Amino acid sequence: MDFATYFQSRIEALKTEGNYRVFADLEKRCGSFPKAERHRPDGTKEEVTIWCSNDYLGMGQHPDVVAAMVDAVQSCGTGAGGTRNISGTNHHHVLLERELADLHGKDGALLFTSGYVSNWAALSTLGSQIPNAVILSDEKNHASMIEGIRHSRADKVLWKHNDWRDLDRKLHAVGPRPKIVAFESVYSMDGDIAPIREIVEVCEAHGALSYIDEVHAVGMYGPRGGGVSEELRLAHRIDIIEGTLGKAFGVVGGYIAAREELIDFVRSFASGFIFTTALPPACAAAAATSIRHLKASSRERARQKANVALVRARLDAKGIPHMANDSHIIPVMIGDPVKCRMISDMLMADWGIYVQPINYPTVPKGTERLRITPGPLHSAEDISHLITALSALWSRCAIAHAVA
Amino acid sequence: MDFATYFQSRIEALKTEGNYRVFADLEKRCGSFPKAERHRPDGTKEEVTIWCSNDYLGMGQHPDVVAAMVDAVQSCGTGAGGTRNISGTNHHHVLLERELADLHGKDGALLFTSGYVSNWAALSTLGSQIPNAVILSDEKNHASMIEGIRHSRADKVLWKHNDWRDLDRKLHAVGPRPKIVAFESVYSMDGDIAPIREIVEVCEAHGALSYIDEVHAVGMYGPRGGGVSEELRLAHRIDIIEGTLGKAFGVVGGYIAAREELIDFVRSFASGFIFTTALPPACAAAAATSIRHLKASSRERARQKANVALVRARLDAKGIPHMANDSHIIPVMIGDPVKCRMISDMLMADWGIYVQPINYPTVPKGTERLRITPGPLHSAEDISHLITALSALWSRCAIAHAVA
Repeated sequence: MDFATYFQSRIEALKTEGNYRVFADLEKRCGSFPKAERHRPDGTKEEVTIWCSNDYLGMGQHPDVVAAMVDAVQSCGTGAGGTRNISGTNHHHVLLERELADLHGKDGALLFTSGYVSNWAALSTLGSQIPNAVILSDEKNHASMIEGIRHSRADKVLWKHNDWRDLDRKLHAVGPRPKIVAFESVYSMDGDIAPIREIVEVCEAHGALSYIDEVHAVGMYGPRGGGVSEELRLAHRIDIIEGTLGKAFGVVGGYIAAREELIDFVRSFASGFIFTTALPPACAAAAATSIRHLKASSRERARQKANVALVRARLDAKGIPHMANDSHIIPVMIGDPVKCRMISDMLMADWGIYVQPINYPTVPKGTERLRITPGPLHSAEDISHLITALSALWSRCAIAHAVA
Repeated sequence: MDFATYFQSRIEALKTEGNYRVFADLEKRCGSFPKAERHRPDGTKEEVTIWCSNDYLGMGQHPDVVAAMVDAVQSCGTGAGGTRNISGTNHHHVLLERELADLHGKDGALLFTSGYVSNWAALSTLGSQIPNAVILSDEKNHASMIEGIRHSRADKVLWKHNDWRDLDRKLHAVGPRPKIVAFESVYSMDGDIAPIREIVEVCEAHGALSYIDEVHAVGMYGPRGGGVSEELRLAHRIDIIEGTLGKAFGVVGGYIAAREELIDFVRSFASGFIFTTALPPACAAAAATSIRHLKASSRERARQKANVALVRARLDAKGIPHMANDSHIIPVMIGDPVKCRMISDMLMADWGIYVQPINYPTVPKGTERLRITPGPLHSAEDISHLITALSALWSRCAIAHAVA
């Protein structure tokens, strides 16, 4: 086989359909986020305002979080130096896991190198190690959950997105087998929120283990940032809460929080946990500081909510269509990969606004979009500038018609 | 199903067979590695010397690497804030990928969140996206490669460990299909080194894509730390070189280096690359600094080699059996999980020496061992103390007889 030609042909196909990805090369400036410098391919630079970051609350530049990371690098060095079992556990990991357990009101927590790995490793371990298990998965679950379930080789049943009645029927049909129900609280691309209470009740009625992915919610929902499950006071009724340290907490890493024996079980059997170098102690120290801050402070959450509401209202005033939802995520639908890329390029080139085009495989083909994530650090001027730019493009390109 | 009881029963079984893992809770002190403080379960602390770290060269506390990470945290913040595609690419990632491509003499490189993820994502993508592919895997490959191959659902053929003649026969038997050959340079638990030249020649003869895992070699082998493939001047004949930034380079993360179109292919299709938050820019900056340092300096490698030779010679002088190999890894075989844990506990409690017992599933049952990794920062006194301790334990416990 001529591998090179094959690889090139697949890349060419992506380019033809408009799904080839070019990464924006950014230089974030601590203290001025959401502003950043972009390195253009020609080597020059320009200032941009980031409108698509998952550093939702700007905690990645919070002075306490930065100081905690710097202090830990200076005191412990740059890396963990091993797997958690072989010299890689640092006291900062232990403290972070305690902080996470407390955040969700659980006995324990287990840290992974990323949110992706936490979903993949936890679900593949539960699915493969619990004999005869079946996993019931919301049809819109994230790739990391899909891959984890697939990797487990357990039987998988898809249920209709956010449809607890469908879940109930399907749990009933499965009968007396060990059942795991996997779903998310906030779905990242549409920004919709699951009917968690109803799902939990259905799980309890069927004796199913409930697994919730709160990566787009932790830090941002609930009085202490414990996610939508905390906001609804349902955390104690959910078996496994999965979250990330790389979005609202502003650092990197993922985790699960659960009862002690479940944590110990995953810790003891998950390949993706056992056979990998632990996160740098400094990342753990920074994440713990960020969590502690957001447990005590609601200022960031309040400002984020206000800015999200303001952007929505101003989009509405200009007649720019966006998907309604109850979260902080504002999807402005375009519906075509080439057009989506073109608008994004114009926003960057003409307005200094960075909103990455979201296309396949992150969203289904035909639902390409701009995904706008207003944060507490966007100023009133930033918001006005964004609306002016989108509004100008909408008139110029008659995108509204294309979308309608 | 009573999940709690089931999880507890599995944990109890691990405890009964001696395979339950207890993590040593360490506090590394930058500047005094391999010394560290251990937090005892009762809350008190003790000083230990780490003899089982994969921070093989102590680069995790190198002043330049520490300074690079601190500077980047202060200038860019603590996290990347998104996937590589959605606002998460920072200029430090771009620079690191260039550094890695240069290290291995390849067109390009692709950064992953860990070495585990790089193996898993690259092999699962190649195996699943190349139609009708078959992956020929050394039978002792690391868990991350095994899981990646398994996840790809491509046909898999195991070949005998390090046996290029067996590989040759098996490649021949596969016939005219796309073939990928996956192997390691240094095997982490036995410390043996693959016959890379012969394997590469066999791959070339059959038109197979060659994939080498150099995680236990990068930084330490070759005049610029490019791994065993650099030392043997074979890097240009190997299609994909996979490595880590979390061991000899002292930080965190993994990567592949290869021809441009292969990098672009994996970049465009690997779920484990696409759907995960990028590493913190500061980790990328630290890793790039570490790589640059080890490209230019052979001092750390030379001191490591000298210390490895010294430990071996002194073990021999005391009649303490260890596995012969050509690498920096010294496996002292115990062959029983309970005894292995006991010796490790005594080394810690009575001698302040930390060598983690290595047991199942990291090594096969019955081959439990102490895995000693001397580094350039172990002093002559550290080495004498280690030998005295092992020697005393060997006399006291008559372990040599148990091993023989």
